[in-house]
Amino acid sequence: MNIRSNPDTTRPAVTTGSLPSSRKIFATPEAAPDLRVPLREIILSEGAGEPNLPVYDTSGPYTDPAVTIDVNTGLPRNRLAWVKERGGVEEYQGRDIKPEDNGNVGASHAAKAFTAHHTPLRGLDGHKITQLEFARAGIITKEMIYVAERENLGRKQQLERAEAALADGESFGAAVPAFITPEFVRSEIARGRAIIPSNINHAELEPMIIGRNFLTKINANIGNSAVTSSVEEEVDKMVWAIRWGADTVMDLSTGRNIHTTREWILRNSPVPIGTVPIYQALEKCEGDPVKLTWELYKDTLIEQCEQGVDYFTIHAGVRLPYIHLTANRVTGIVSRGGSIMAKWCLAHHKESFLYTHFDEICDLMRKYDVSFSLGDGLRPGSIADANDRAQFAELETLGELTKIAWDKGCQVMIEGPGHVPMHKIKINMDKQLKECGEAPFYTLGPLTTDIAPGYDHITSGIGAAMIGWFGCAMLCYVTPKEHLGLPDRNDVKVGVITYKIAAHASDLAKGHPAAQLRDDALSRARFDFRWQDQFSLGLDPETAKNFHDETLPKEAHKVAHFCSMCGPKFCSMKITQDVRDYAATLNDPTGIGTSMSGTIEDGMAQMSAKFKEMGESLYLDADKVKESNRVL
Amino acid sequence: MNIRSNPDTTRPAVTTGSLPSSRKIFATPEAAPDLRVPLREIILSEGAGEPNLPVYDTSGPYTDPAVTIDVNTGLPRNRLAWVKERGGVEEYQGRDIKPEDNGNVGASHAAKAFTAHHTPLRGLDGHKITQLEFARAGIITKEMIYVAERENLGRKQQLERAEAALADGESFGAAVPAFITPEFVRSEIARGRAIIPSNINHAELEPMIIGRNFLTKINANIGNSAVTSSVEEEVDKMVWAIRWGADTVMDLSTGRNIHTTREWILRNSPVPIGTVPIYQALEKCEGDPVKLTWELYKDTLIEQCEQGVDYFTIHAGVRLPYIHLTANRVTGIVSRGGSIMAKWCLAHHKESFLYTHFDEICDLMRKYDVSFSLGDGLRPGSIADANDRAQFAELETLGELTKIAWDKGCQVMIEGPGHVPMHKIKINMDKQLKECGEAPFYTLGPLTTDIAPGYDHITSGIGAAMIGWFGCAMLCYVTPKEHLGLPDRNDVKVGVITYKIAAHASDLAKGHPAAQLRDDALSRARFDFRWQDQFSLGLDPETAKNFHDETLPKEAHKVAHFCSMCGPKFCSMKITQDVRDYAATLNDPTGIGTSMSGTIEDGMAQMSAKFKEMGESLYLDADKVKESNRVL
Repeated sequence: MNIRSNPDTTRPAVTTGSLPSSRKIFATPEAAPDLRVPLREIILSEGAGEPNLPVYDTSGPYTDPAVTIDVNTGLPRNRLAWVKERGGVEEYQGRDIKPEDNGNVGASHAAKAFTAHHTPLRGLDGHKITQLEFARAGIITKEMIYVAERENLGRKQQLERAEAALADGESFGAAVPAFITPEFVRSEIARGRAIIPSNINHAELEPMIIGRNFLTKINANIGNSAVTSSVEEEVDKMVWAIRWGADTVMDLSTGRNIHTTREWILRNSPVPIGTVPIYQALEKCEGDPVKLTWELYKDTLIEQCEQGVDYFTIHAGVRLPYIHLTANRVTGIVSRGGSIMAKWCLAHHKESFLYTHFDEICDLMRKYDVSFSLGDGLRPGSIADANDRAQFAELETLGELTKIAWDKGCQVMIEGPGHVPMHKIKINMDKQLKECGEAPFYTLGPLTTDIAPGYDHITSGIGAAMIGWFGCAMLCYVTPKEHLGLPDRNDVKVGVITYKIAAHASDLAKGHPAAQLRDDALSRARFDFRWQDQFSLGLDPETAKNFHDETLPKEAHKVAHFCSMCGPKFCSMKITQDVRDYAATLNDPTGIGTSMSGTIEDGMAQMSAKFKEMGESLYLDADKVKESNRVL
Repeated sequence: MNIRSNPDTTRPAVTTGSLPSSRKIFATPEAAPDLRVPLREIILSEGAGEPNLPVYDTSGPYTDPAVTIDVNTGLPRNRLAWVKERGGVEEYQGRDIKPEDNGNVGASHAAKAFTAHHTPLRGLDGHKITQLEFARAGIITKEMIYVAERENLGRKQQLERAEAALADGESFGAAVPAFITPEFVRSEIARGRAIIPSNINHAELEPMIIGRNFLTKINANIGNSAVTSSVEEEVDKMVWAIRWGADTVMDLSTGRNIHTTREWILRNSPVPIGTVPIYQALEKCEGDPVKLTWELYKDTLIEQCEQGVDYFTIHAGVRLPYIHLTANRVTGIVSRGGSIMAKWCLAHHKESFLYTHFDEICDLMRKYDVSFSLGDGLRPGSIADANDRAQFAELETLGELTKIAWDKGCQVMIEGPGHVPMHKIKINMDKQLKECGEAPFYTLGPLTTDIAPGYDHITSGIGAAMIGWFGCAMLCYVTPKEHLGLPDRNDVKVGVITYKIAAHASDLAKGHPAAQLRDDALSRARFDFRWQDQFSLGLDPETAKNFHDETLPKEAHKVAHFCSMCGPKFCSMKITQDVRDYAATLNDPTGIGTSMSGTIEDGMAQMSAKFKEMGESLYLDADKVKESNRVL
């Protein structure tokens, strides 16, 4: 059902329509019956013998058949009313768009401007604006109610149905509750342990939350560069990324048309959009870091605040005294933002203006509730450079800046590495929690080895799953093209699916109360040879079905009780049914029953009691699991 | 340079020729100058400023331009002389091939027989035959010398060149030495902590070692089934798998032509071949597990011992009293061998004949030095079933059987799960080490979530990297087709590369003394914009180059100092060079030098001393890393 919209060349074509065997449903929170919180219901086959499974839905209106998508007008701006009704904001004549905002692009190369213009809002002095400010004041916003409902996924009904004790994970000090309430959301935001990135000017947003006590999230990076790609491709990539599960999207565009590209993306995005404002600031001074000024940077922040960017990566921890610490590295400074600031600091022999003007940055971002994503400009770019003094010096500074931003009322998360071998991942996570007061960690990978260009979604998926388990709140995807080129549509999908795997594996290991419900539903489908349900419940139903059909394409095979690995007469799952029949005879109090061989021997009656006793220790308890990881 | 051989349809076509930028070199061990131990030398570009990098080479003569490959005659049988010269073996008239060995295939469906016939060898009573027996007697075999040289990879010369302290891993009690000596190999085999799977009848073998104190190995499964694929495809898959790095290959064929397929594979395989003999035994009784007998099974073992199979998966731990423990599982028994034996046990209500005849199995396998791979027939097939009583009851029995096999002089490794969430992986590894006296663990994955059919190379690559770190010796690959169909050529490659990543990430984290050399070489190439070297040093040079060329195809771009992500004027690595220039001025004792801005301010001279002091704590020491993981 992947319909690409009208291929009218004047507007980007995007993919719409439901995912396979899925329909959009909406939950209505008790605390705010006017809200409609989207879920995706995976529809199981008629004979499944179990209810459909609701799952988290990042895809926005694009998968809602009731909504007509027109990227020229953008998504409905429902959230505008939420912001206005709580007050404390004003509409004002925003900053004029200047030629330099689009890299002084000439008419022949200019992208088509987004048609509609929305007057920006900003916070008024003396009023609460940010989610953090409301949370601290004990006020539960609609955004908080929305995300609480969204995180629960109908968890209560599902858990009541599930028989086994599901949550035996090891969370390393996280505190994931059985059910998410709006009050829990508020309290986590108030203490800085979670954020809802939600610029008051991003009215198209379906709010989501980032924090270690919520579902592990993933981010997808898109963006054109000076060398390749177009506005159309980037809007399509955003829609494509959220279709497969990206929770937030970063627009890392460089080159020309940077303002216009971002406008198209924001007006069509139901997920938070992050940017690295220094990239655009640099475009405004012909790519020469030495020419950067605080005024130019500040003007860029205002431009992006007014557009509705939800979080800014700001590399304010790249301080002059740390720069020389990278000199002996194998790969020096690999963060673009970090290297720009390093060059500026060196050229002027001055402390970074991001650091010296940090207070002003906070004051500005607070007015729009733009969240900080404090950038790790000195992150390691190779295994050799992991966890070195440069990286950790910056992280300590990010901790210092976190407290300043919190004092100013701003929401904060912290960016992390990079390239880190497995044995150095936990020290990173632990240090981040300690230095930054449990502000959400948002990591790129980490890549656990450098030797597989072309497969860095996998080298990093390993590290991402581990750091998510250890406490990371959001995982920034890495695509197969990492280090080699810009990701295309297919790379975006592979990156997103890989990171959905990592995030879900993290949730399982942490002991998220409802994470295993999907695994169990899929495994039951697998065991029952409900092929279609197995595809539908997977992260990528299309690929699973295509792979299956390569060897067993016939429709009849999808209900066949065998698969291509074993063939029809030789199937382990079929044999297992016999085991169940046998076990049933063991539980037969008469001791008679019918075994596979037709009769049960005399000794069986006595053994039955012993078997029952052994069965009671069927599952190792959670304590043993925790003990194993503590020893580790 | 991938030349597929003469497409003569009477013989399988296989891929030959060097890997990109590579050449086959041979090391000559001091202890046995007649041996030629293959390595792959990765040839760096002229301006690299560093020597070529030798890496482990599993690909056999297929990548040696000096060897003419003819799969009809098979590989040179060099190892025959080694076996004969140490004596204790006899040639004898082997078992006749029977129609049932190939599933009573009719003439119209019979695969072409392998032409050459080799008279089998077997051990004589009262003589040492197995590597374990020689090792215990203090005798260092040629196989031991060979693998010692192979594992070292010219490590000594390389480590002398490397400046940093490389090995700061956490090995959880492993004991990886700085250099591998033949005596170390002998001692590890003598205590059962490593094996060299090496049937005396597999004379084409290039020996390799499996043990937690050696490089982490990977296995690739191939094999036709009753439903699909052919002999030709399977031989090609074997050659293809070892080309990309498979250390051993299991032939899991079922259906017809099973004997002939295996003969083609063995005669053309330089790596150890493993099988699951019960699969073939079952074919001999029309696929009905109830009709299996010890005699039929034993006859199959002899058949495969004479052919030269190097290790047998034997599910002797699936005991009658454990079977009912699987009844309440979500996915019951998912191991084919396990379910066959379970059905047999139930049908006859008898203890497994593999368990009751285990002594005889040992006596037979010892005569050919076939290694045990004690199968985990009750491994979990879903997250819900991980670490349950059924799995661990079987593992305890495998520990008991390990000791029996050792007493009989047999080499042993132990198979492991399966589907296991991250937080339950370490308890598996720890229990295996304890129950099985550190016999090498050989695990399938484990898959860390069930929700991604089509991507199970990734769900399992995460678990594989972790269990390898924790002490697993060999990782059995999982391909994208897992649960969906038989892997084709491309799936085999993706599976192998994914598992090379997992194995290498494990080696890095364990602190293998030389593992990081390749990461560092690749990262230096990346930092220097030596694109071709970056491709050459990667696990899959072709894919990396193709990905790069999609956006920057021109030859000139491969020496350009920028990439498609950042564009020419905006490159972090270029900026980093400026940092180095700057840092050099800090180390200038005159305090003058030249900074980016042209002059150094007065304060700089004082700061220089402070910076130097900070630089000394550049790298966190290994103790801190270890401490972090202990807390975990």
